Amino acid sequence: MVTSRSAATARSQGASPRRRGPVLERAILEAALDQLSTVGWNGLTMEGVAVGAQTGKAAVYRRWPSKEDLVADALQVGLPTLDEAPDHGSVREDLYQLCRRIRAAMYSKPGFALRSVIHECDSETAERLHGLIVTGVIEPSARLLREVVRRGIRRGDVRADATGELLFDVIPAMMMYRSKMCASEWTDAEIAAMIDQIMVPLLRSPSS
Amino acid sequence: MVTSRSAATARSQGASPRRRGPVLERAILEAALDQLSTVGWNGLTMEGVAVGAQTGKAAVYRRWPSKEDLVADALQVGLPTLDEAPDHGSVREDLYQLCRRIRAAMYSKPGFALRSVIHECDSETAERLHGLIVTGVIEPSARLLREVVRRGIRRGDVRADATGELLFDVIPAMMMYRSKMCASEWTDAEIAAMIDQIMVPLLRSPSS
Repeated sequence: MVTSRSAATARSQGASPRRRGPVLERAILEAALDQLSTVGWNGLTMEGVAVGAQTGKAAVYRRWPSKEDLVADALQVGLPTLDEAPDHGSVREDLYQLCRRIRAAMYSKPGFALRSVIHECDSETAERLHGLIVTGVIEPSARLLREVVRRGIRRGDVRADATGELLFDVIPAMMMYRSKMCASEWTDAEIAAMIDQIMVPLLRSPSS
Repeated sequence: MVTSRSAATARSQGASPRRRGPVLERAILEAALDQLSTVGWNGLTMEGVAVGAQTGKAAVYRRWPSKEDLVADALQVGLPTLDEAPDHGSVREDLYQLCRRIRAAMYSKPGFALRSVIHECDSETAERLHGLIVTGVIEPSARLLREVVRRGIRRGDVRADATGELLFDVIPAMMMYRSKMCASEWTDAEIAAMIDQIMVPLLRSPSS
């Protein structure tokens, strides 16, 4: 597929000016995400990444001694930050907007890349990258969900005892399950159905 | 790993009497499940299966022209049947017992085999085996969950409008998610926590 000759051609065409430091690093990380989302974890090679970033293999190896190191950094830098919980005045609307953001992250380039890593790499590599998935995806989503639910409890449209840790796994679990097992792409209508059939009855306060 | 020589050795040791028809087929399917649960989908070879079943490669190929055909049959025959919904007089107890059965299926040899297929095989193979997962696992679990919930509605400990299709995905989704992402092995206590934190509040009728 990608050969040294094509790398040489890319360089000789002068498509890329001499880049250093952060600019070159950024290009290499971008190229790694491109590779992950097209040929997947198993197909990714350091050489392919070098070609994609229009640089040499040595420039890649100088910064990242292995494919695992490179992929870990690429995912960490590329994943969208889920930083602020939506605040629209109702738990139903907040959860709906939060699910749309989670969907956007899932179907972003780094989201596809992450899923290829989760599904393809062997258990040893998976273990190493697992921490990244936890800190980069699971914890931030759970934190925002917790924030939305807490605000609902204060407002009164969520029951006061909706505090169990497992509650905050329901949305990510459903999104992963139906995307993998039922090939669902989580249209807006499907997100709304999940909120109405599951999250609203699960969280509502007896008085509301 | 497994070589023709070791196959020949196994045969020459006379460990296996001459078997025909269903007995030999059963041994081959068992050996396929063994391979799946030890070396996974990617590691499984027709030759390895033949050695495991103490037969020749030709005997395997005569019945199953490809690895995919063989694995599809092995899973279909091996998966435990989830045939009757538990009936203990309360939705809480019924769901608890049903989850324990789903866990037993997940951690059975064919369950491990199935998961290796889901996680390892490429999307083309996955598509072909996907139908098997749907008819062998997803639909039977959803059917039993639906039965338990319907009975709860009739009895009055489940709200009458607990009929949305997505409700019946929550348990399998949670079990898959936390087993994959949090390495949970679903102890009895974790199953009970899921029922109490999620399923009971999700399903309970306002009057109960």
